[in-house]
Amino acid sequence: MNDKEYMMLALEQAKIAYNLGEVPVGAVIVQNGKVIATGYNRREIDKNALSHAEHTAIDNACKALGGWRLPRCTLYVTLEPCLMCSGAILHARIDRVVFGTRDEKSGAFGSVLDVNTLPLNHKCEVTEGICAEECKNILQQFFSDLRQRKKKK
Amino acid sequence: MNDKEYMMLALEQAKIAYNLGEVPVGAVIVQNGKVIATGYNRREIDKNALSHAEHTAIDNACKALGGWRLPRCTLYVTLEPCLMCSGAILHARIDRVVFGTRDEKSGAFGSVLDVNTLPLNHKCEVTEGICAEECKNILQQFFSDLRQRKKKK
Repeated sequence: MNDKEYMMLALEQAKIAYNLGEVPVGAVIVQNGKVIATGYNRREIDKNALSHAEHTAIDNACKALGGWRLPRCTLYVTLEPCLMCSGAILHARIDRVVFGTRDEKSGAFGSVLDVNTLPLNHKCEVTEGICAEECKNILQQFFSDLRQRKKKK
Repeated sequence: MNDKEYMMLALEQAKIAYNLGEVPVGAVIVQNGKVIATGYNRREIDKNALSHAEHTAIDNACKALGGWRLPRCTLYVTLEPCLMCSGAILHARIDRVVFGTRDEKSGAFGSVLDVNTLPLNHKCEVTEGICAEECKNILQQFFSDLRQRKKKK
């Protein structure tokens, strides 16, 4: 499978979030070509500030591999990771991050800052723009629906 | 209770980590004068990159309050929060952070960067240096013990 195909799986995760009324962001973690963990944003359902897609995927991947290091892993996520999630990515020593669309308001791999430029003990390779349109569209659709629902109230 | 007294509770949490062989960092979250959550570093035991003291405390506080926002809360932590934890602090809308000693290698409230200078939608008040010596000493003792154990092997 290639980057686009793995990102389509992350988009499937984002759709689960969408259908639950959560901001639709999805993630998968791949090691040696195999999906070892998935995650989608569950902040409202979990009532928890930590429940971002990448965060949940990293939590699941640590459980799957039985260790806090996630060697030879690539994390695919539909939206540029935030500060918290980019910190978690570095802590877990993830080699590579592929994201779909930029998060201009809170993205930490180039938008509000680039964590790879900080003097930390791990850096990761970053690829952006894979399935960018699809990743952006699902978010735009979600916020458009939300505005419509608010207008009706 | 004052800042020093709450930090002593965070230090008690750090001691639990120390006794478990974990890097000794502890945290408590206080709302309206009441401790609503605690946490200590459990990365090795949990085999999980996310299990920092502040992270665990925020997770427990969200569960205690039943929501992802932690209003009117102060987080006390023995060591300056990292990128991941400072991101989590901002996501949870924590008003104030009090930390003991700086983490020059990975601290995100002034050391490798200051997240309060980023254009994000939440900022928090920060106080540092409360019980700084005690917070630093327990870490130094831990790493000194570790070096001794490694020499003996």
